[in-house]
Amino acid sequence: MEEGSGRVSTGTDGGCPRGPTGQNGERMGELRTTFISRGRRSSIEADASFLELARRVGLSLPSLCGGRGKCAKCKCRPQGPTTPFTPLELEMLTEAERDLGVRLGCQARPLGAVEVPIEEERLDKGDYGEVRVTPEPILRKVYLELTPAAMHDDLSDIERLRAHLGDGLGGDLATLRTLAPALRQADFRVTATLMATPRGGEELVSVEGGDTRGQAYGIAFDIGTTTVVGYLLDLATGAEIARASRLNGQQPWGADVLSRASHAMEQPEGGAELQAAIVGTINQIIEDCCAGVDVRQVYYLTVVGNSIMHHLLLRLSPGPIAVSPYVTVTRDPLTVRAADLGIALPNARVFFLPLIGAYVGADTLGVILATGMDQSDEMQLAVDIGTNGEMALGSRGKLLACSAPAGPAFEGAEIHQGMRASVGAIDRVRLAEDVRLWTIGDAPPRGICGSGLIDAVAQMLRRGLVDSRGRLLPRPHLEGKLPPKLLERLVGQGHTWEFVLSRDPYVAVTQDDVRQIQLAKGTIHCGVQVLMEELGIQASQIARVFLAGAFGNFIDRRSALAVGLLPPTIPLERIQGVGNAAGQGSRMALLSTSIRKRSETVARQVEYFELSKHPRFEEIFIDSLAFPTSQG
Amino acid sequence: MEEGSGRVSTGTDGGCPRGPTGQNGERMGELRTTFISRGRRSSIEADASFLELARRVGLSLPSLCGGRGKCAKCKCRPQGPTTPFTPLELEMLTEAERDLGVRLGCQARPLGAVEVPIEEERLDKGDYGEVRVTPEPILRKVYLELTPAAMHDDLSDIERLRAHLGDGLGGDLATLRTLAPALRQADFRVTATLMATPRGGEELVSVEGGDTRGQAYGIAFDIGTTTVVGYLLDLATGAEIARASRLNGQQPWGADVLSRASHAMEQPEGGAELQAAIVGTINQIIEDCCAGVDVRQVYYLTVVGNSIMHHLLLRLSPGPIAVSPYVTVTRDPLTVRAADLGIALPNARVFFLPLIGAYVGADTLGVILATGMDQSDEMQLAVDIGTNGEMALGSRGKLLACSAPAGPAFEGAEIHQGMRASVGAIDRVRLAEDVRLWTIGDAPPRGICGSGLIDAVAQMLRRGLVDSRGRLLPRPHLEGKLPPKLLERLVGQGHTWEFVLSRDPYVAVTQDDVRQIQLAKGTIHCGVQVLMEELGIQASQIARVFLAGAFGNFIDRRSALAVGLLPPTIPLERIQGVGNAAGQGSRMALLSTSIRKRSETVARQVEYFELSKHPRFEEIFIDSLAFPTSQG
Repeated sequence: MEEGSGRVSTGTDGGCPRGPTGQNGERMGELRTTFISRGRRSSIEADASFLELARRVGLSLPSLCGGRGKCAKCKCRPQGPTTPFTPLELEMLTEAERDLGVRLGCQARPLGAVEVPIEEERLDKGDYGEVRVTPEPILRKVYLELTPAAMHDDLSDIERLRAHLGDGLGGDLATLRTLAPALRQADFRVTATLMATPRGGEELVSVEGGDTRGQAYGIAFDIGTTTVVGYLLDLATGAEIARASRLNGQQPWGADVLSRASHAMEQPEGGAELQAAIVGTINQIIEDCCAGVDVRQVYYLTVVGNSIMHHLLLRLSPGPIAVSPYVTVTRDPLTVRAADLGIALPNARVFFLPLIGAYVGADTLGVILATGMDQSDEMQLAVDIGTNGEMALGSRGKLLACSAPAGPAFEGAEIHQGMRASVGAIDRVRLAEDVRLWTIGDAPPRGICGSGLIDAVAQMLRRGLVDSRGRLLPRPHLEGKLPPKLLERLVGQGHTWEFVLSRDPYVAVTQDDVRQIQLAKGTIHCGVQVLMEELGIQASQIARVFLAGAFGNFIDRRSALAVGLLPPTIPLERIQGVGNAAGQGSRMALLSTSIRKRSETVARQVEYFELSKHPRFEEIFIDSLAFPTSQG
Repeated sequence: MEEGSGRVSTGTDGGCPRGPTGQNGERMGELRTTFISRGRRSSIEADASFLELARRVGLSLPSLCGGRGKCAKCKCRPQGPTTPFTPLELEMLTEAERDLGVRLGCQARPLGAVEVPIEEERLDKGDYGEVRVTPEPILRKVYLELTPAAMHDDLSDIERLRAHLGDGLGGDLATLRTLAPALRQADFRVTATLMATPRGGEELVSVEGGDTRGQAYGIAFDIGTTTVVGYLLDLATGAEIARASRLNGQQPWGADVLSRASHAMEQPEGGAELQAAIVGTINQIIEDCCAGVDVRQVYYLTVVGNSIMHHLLLRLSPGPIAVSPYVTVTRDPLTVRAADLGIALPNARVFFLPLIGAYVGADTLGVILATGMDQSDEMQLAVDIGTNGEMALGSRGKLLACSAPAGPAFEGAEIHQGMRASVGAIDRVRLAEDVRLWTIGDAPPRGICGSGLIDAVAQMLRRGLVDSRGRLLPRPHLEGKLPPKLLERLVGQGHTWEFVLSRDPYVAVTQDDVRQIQLAKGTIHCGVQVLMEELGIQASQIARVFLAGAFGNFIDRRSALAVGLLPPTIPLERIQGVGNAAGQGSRMALLSTSIRKRSETVARQVEYFELSKHPRFEEIFIDSLAFPTSQG
């Protein structure tokens, strides 16, 4: 079959003799890939890897290695004709997987019409609970029935509004551009939306035909490295109208913030690509949320996120954050027009909550606001565990914060059968006479997620399969000390033993996995320990511990103590999962002017502490690596 | 010869059999049109009229009818193969013109490689004279040798600047985006440019490597409907570095403001097209001016222009100005980022001087500032004659302004052999025993421009060829009353007499031309008369009359009085041409903060008067139409 030229939308070839241009084009017409995500179909005609094609339609396949065939996280099951398995796929995929048609998204490409289902992730970061904020909106809407301009009443349009709204009223160019048609299409009966300016004045942000005083919305965003969540709220009542979450569209450029910062720094258009990707995700969430709402009546957004997400969205250079000595371009609270960032809300302003430091961002500030640590008389600790573990310790008047680079192990990355917390992930493990497993969605196990691993390691510690130095003991050492069914699950030889959680499908915890967990939990523990030393307190003095984020929400608190993620002397009952507290902080700031002001005060008060600056850092870190002695 | 497909850059056809796509494309490769303007060559390969092609390369052929073949102003002489004469061209062009290869730019298209010289116009609006403003720049530049960020000195970049420049310092997102690379590329030795904000603070507008305190520039623009002028000034010394003028790139959408406003109102992309066109002209002027200057060091622009030019550049709707009751969207002084308008100056802010009213714009304000009328104790009159005649009358404390829609006759439009004031235009006429003519550039006469027409009509009035009602008398009426050589120049019959100024090339003043001048001068006269009545003064009380703009500069003052453009009782010596006073006002505002403030005060003080509101408007207008009784 010969090659056509250009885009061919019909299936038949006109029989034209092959001309010079005919040899250069690709046959695009039959390479139609349709991604199915959340019931929505997105198609594209192009010859590229499924990973790349997904990116082009605004979806994401998970990827840690940026499409280099190394992480095997972009597995998918395309249905339809595809390119043959590559040598990399033969190496990375099991025979069973290959039989099922599983492919690496970065390797396989369509050969015809292909459908690719994208599995839904457990995207929700957990619900913080009810919002208990009294709305104090930053804006007011005023309905006006103006006298139209006339021969002897020739005020300019903005002066006509000022006659009712006050002499000082200004509006930016974008609003002025809408003014003349808005007034005239509605016969000068309009609703003006006025937003308070930082200096106590008001700015005209929108003029709408008719009386629309009842409609004023805002969206609180939590921009995570992995997941982005948006909450559409009624600014007057505080009621949640809708919420949506999506994978951060920057995934194709790496799972971690540093890969993305590198791309922005090293590629001429890198910053622009990453900004477009996150704005794309934000716009999808807006579309998801705003089905019943006029986007012109979304006036305000708040954004929390780590400092690199913050800089990438604003298209500030992330270089200074990524490279020692690790500083931001700005930590200030910023207000920017949504449209100036490419966000599809014509009248909205975006309030970026301030950053605390290079690695303690506005997300941590959100956690502090949501938990009220800054207003507490008790000593409190908040830990938000993602790829970095950001934490804050203190009470009213004195708060210290730091970031502990835990790595992605808690998110299932760099774990042999690790996976994100999506359907089929083992998320709870108990060892008795044999292994008992729970999976997300009660589906057959496909792998193990962070909370499952913490559980598994905690149980293995308790039963003596792992010692306090993190060694997974060989079966011969444990003969007679374990029930036979558990013993049988220890397989391997020499130094390469692993503990089989599930035989079919095969999911095991390896020695490497235990080491990864040990490093990750040790890093977090070290951070907490350094903050305690800096404040001169003991773990027993901490009255409450807030575990924020998805991981914090789903982790078994007892297991967290058992593996030494937190100092074991903290009583279990003082530990509390608080779900997406960062997002909650964003919601609170969206609704309340005084909480926004509080956020600025808190950001200035919190002392950002660079872990490695502590004189005893190495010592504390090494101590933190040990697993607590079994209390089994 | 067969049609190729797509862009073919070589001259030969590969002999490929004609395929399906081959029949759809145009042969673009050989349709290369090169415009030659001011010694610069601009080429384009496309199949379109020369009028359209000129527009696409950013040049303008004159056009009054928007390319409909009605005005014949877009005559040009393409050299190379072109399409045959159209019936419209056969009608509109003389045989002699056709023999010389003259074409209508809106009708003719290239058939191969064509060169089209575009004649230079006398673009300069006249020089106001020396600038006598003490610079009080809105900005300051500070050289800083900062300590680089370090492990124990981890301020954000903006905080590092604030430590030297003051706590309140902010910068917009565009400036923040440049901050990190600017600091690090220059090893933290930088010059910060700080601009005063309206509220008394300062804003960071640029950070440049090294010590650049000596370089700070601004450009004062005067945006006319026909001509745009820019003056590049040193903000510290006030020295003029360069100036440039260009035809307003909006010409293809009509010569007058209302045609352009209509296009913006009626076409979905009309406003965007017109904005892009004027921004293109501005960017050309910037390129012309900034040969020796780093455009990053141009920090400030000022703009004066009529209200429709103002609205179109800001992309505000011109509809309310164009349609009764004629109001603006805003008359406020506005400051906008140049980049937000598409102006190619990354660090510049644009200050739009305020408008006085819908038809008395910031250009008239510029004239008031430049002439100092607002500070004068004498009664003064300023008249800026373009398509509209804007005028202001009064003294310190009380100024009245109005606009008189004179039409384009003074610019040579709607005049049989009318032309703009460019090479070959008759610009001075004297009648003695015979006609004496002067032309611009001492070239053979090609037509007559506004100042030439005023001269011609004044002389014809003086010699009795035209009576006070504007009738061009038939030759039989004048037998014996005129020297024979003048008499011979009266040709025609019945009501269609014309007075031949030049026989070869043929240039004559027709009865219609006299009527056009009569209407135009009557309109201006009416405006002056109404303002005088409103202020309750007589013409003799006017101590000075400023004639602004190119026309005002080049007109013979005696002829202006003779045709009754101004009340004949004003003594000749009180009338003064002031050149481009609007541009001068723009320059003054560029250099001086206090003059900018004065501009805002004046704009609020000047009373805008709508001519047609005067109860005796019709009566005064009819009286104004008469030519003064010959004083010859």
